[in-house]
Formats: sequence, C-alpha cells, structure tokens
Amino acid sequence: MSDVLCALQAALEDRRNADPADSYVASLYSAGLNKILEKVGEEATEVIVAAKDYDSTDEARAALLGEVADLWFHSMVLLTHLGLSQEEVLDALGARLGISGHTEKQSRSKA
Amino acid sequence: MSDVLCALQAALEDRRNADPADSYVASLYSAGLNKILEKVGEEATEVIVAAKDYDSTDEARAALLGEVADLWFHSMVLLTHLGLSQEEVLDALGARLGISGHTEKQSRSKA
Amino acid sequence: MSDVLCALQAALEDRRNADPADSYVASLYSAGLNKILEKVGEEATEVIVAAKDYDSTDEARAALLGEVADLWFHSMVLLTHLGLSQEEVLDALGARLGISGHTEKQSRSKA
Amino acid sequence: MSDVLCALQAALEDRRNADPADSYVASLYSAGLNKILEKVGEEATEVIVAAKDYDSTDEARAALLGEVADLWFHSMVLLTHLGLSQEEVLDALGARLGISGHTEKQSRSKA
Repeated sequence: MSDVLCALQAALEDRRNADPADSYVASLYSAGLNKILEKVGEEATEVIVAAKDYDSTDEARAALLGEVADLWFHSMVLLTHLGLSQEEVLDALGARLGISGHTEKQSRSKA
Repeated sequence: MSDVLCALQAALEDRRNADPADSYVASLYSAGLNKILEKVGEEATEVIVAAKDYDSTDEARAALLGEVADLWFHSMVLLTHLGLSQEEVLDALGARLGISGHTEKQSRSKA
Repeated sequence: MSDVLCALQAALEDRRNADPADSYVASLYSAGLNKILEKVGEEATEVIVAAKDYDSTDEARAALLGEVADLWFHSMVLLTHLGLSQEEVLDALGARLGISGHTEKQSRSKA
Repeated sequence: MSDVLCALQAALEDRRNADPADSYVASLYSAGLNKILEKVGEEATEVIVAAKDYDSTDEARAALLGEVADLWFHSMVLLTHLGLSQEEVLDALGARLGISGHTEKQSRSKA
C-alpha cells in the first residue's frame, strides 16, 4: 500500500540472508528479539527528546523526522523478525479509521 | 504514498477543529505536546511487552499488530500536532533505501 | 540501608494483602506484571519530559523530583511483585562502587 | 539516608572534575542532557525486557537486579547533572509514605 514501506519491507526480508558482519539489519536479527526491542525503546526515547527540542528550524525538523523514521524502521525490523508485515499494521490502522487497507486495495483495483 | 497513512493523516488534521470532549485526538492536541509524548512512550512500552508475549497465536499476533498500530498512530498525532507529515517520514525512510518518496511519486505519475 | 526505601518496601509488601479496590499498589499487583511494566515505561517517559522542561524553578524542580520518585516507586512495586528487594538493588549499585551494601551493613553493625 | 546512595552520589559529584576520556560518568556529563536521557530510556527498556525474561533463576535474578541498578544509577547521573540529589527523591518518596526523610533523620539523630 505504501511504496516506501513495501520497498523497506522487501529490503528487510532480503537482509535475513545477509551476513551480520555486512548488514546492520542482519546484525539485529542475529542479536535477537531483546536487542531489537532495546532499539525500539531507544528510538522512542530519541523521538521524545527530539520533539522536546523541536523549534521549527530546518535542523530540528530534519532531526525529529529522522527519529520518527528510525522508530518506524526498527518497528519494521521487529515485525520482519517475527514474521509479521507492515501491511498488517496498516490494516489495523485502517480498521480504526473504518478504512480496511485490504478493502481499499480492492476498491482501488476496480477504479 | 500510503493510502491508509494518507487517510489517517487527513483524519488527524481534521480533528484539529474537533471538540476535545468529542474526539480522543482533539483531546490529545488540547492536552499538549507532553501528553502526546507520554502516549508515544506508553505505546512503545506496550509494543515491547506484546513482543515479549508473542507466541505466534492469532491472539498474540493481533495484540502485537495493534500495539505497533497504536505506536504509529500516536507518532502521527505528534507529527500533526507539530505541523509535520507522515510523507516526510516516508521520505526520510526512502532516502535510507535510496528510494525517495518524492522521486518515486514523480516516476509513478509519469508511468 | 535507606530508611525511606526500607519503609517503602515494607509498605509495598504489606499491600500484598490489601484489597485492590482500596489500594493503588494492590490494584497494580492484581493487574499483573505487564501493567506494572507499563507504569515503569510511563514513568521513565515522564522523567525524560520533566528533565527537558527543567529550568531550575522550584516548580520544575519539584516536578522532576516527583517523576524520579514515581519511577523508583514503580521499580520497587516491580521488585516486590517478583519477590525481589531494593536492598539487592543497592547491593548491585554498591558493588559497582566497590562498596557492598552487605559488607557495609556488617561494618556498621560492628561500629 | 541510604549509605550506598550517598556514596554513589558523592562518587557522581566527584566525576564532575574527571576527564571524559577516563570516566564513563564524566563522558555522560560532557555529552549532555539528551545523552543522559537516552541512557535513562534505554535502561528502562532493559528493565522491562529483563522483567519479562525473569524466571526466578539466579541468572535472571542477577540480570533484573542489574538492570534496575542501571536505571537508578542513570537516574542519579541525571539528578547530579542538573544539581539535584537522591536525598530529595527519597524525601519525595517518604512524603508519599507520610515519612519525610528529613524528619526521620532528625528523629534518628535524637534516638
């Protein structure tokens, strides 16, 4: 549904076969669930700190966006590590909006 | 780029004009940045706990996906509160992949 | 070793027998480990936010000290829930300092 | 009030004058508030993960106690960095118990 999220998920799945010495993501998979969760916790903290420092300057904007990107990135590493997908997260988000991602995709393919 | 994320962002922007008594999101905007950040921290903790409880059952799967959805949802409430967008986060993610969301959109519109 | 921490631990142990309807701590024990961990995560977030807001005023000072107190309090609820004690945490801290709490207590009792 | 916490605070204050290249604590002070807060967030996550892994074995017990010790340690680095003290945190905790650390110290000195 999101081209960037789809491409990222494909890349994260591809890293399952990579050498931990060559790939940051493969090194996280290899370190295991606790290490991945520590990264999720770290990135959430960094989002909070960057949001408190946010002052509308370009630098602060890039810093906060980068931290949110890191948080979503490591959430997706977690999902991939456990065999889940970002599409299922978007479905859960869509359901709250009354917009199922699945339904929406069907309606789009008919459009 | 993501239809669900776009629809969610539109809904979150719409809630800026809602009555905090009627809308959970409007109540977060009204409570302010610190309250929104507390929710981001809470949801990150709930992702970690749900991931540690994850055992591949449908119930655990739904629980973890729901917590990741909550984390992304509250990240987007934060972005909207500060005048930022999920599109910029996807651009930051795409840039790491060597896929700019913006470039991709251009290439898509040409296709 | 710390009179306040000892008194707090005694109070937390005493709450094991309290009615969850009457006692906040008993309601946490009754809700279980995940709920207690969510509180630890929440309080850590609140410490971070209060520290970013800290500006040396009496109000900010009281707010930050209160959040650190809440974090330690809920850490101790966690310890008590799992049958551990603050004394063991102080021993672990002391060991890093080259000051074992246990040894120190012995040397004190000889003084 | 707590001998270990007092000794730790004295050590943390002493590190203010240390070379960041020689002392972990001095390196945190030198890196500044955001770095210290990231450590508080990291340690809170590690407490949560260790508590979910806790199974009453000696190894799990030592791991969880070590993580709580790390959380308290970095909370005290934060306090010292901002010119606050663990004694004020204990006073805040004692006040909730109806036991002011200050009052208690006075009563002890009279005993």
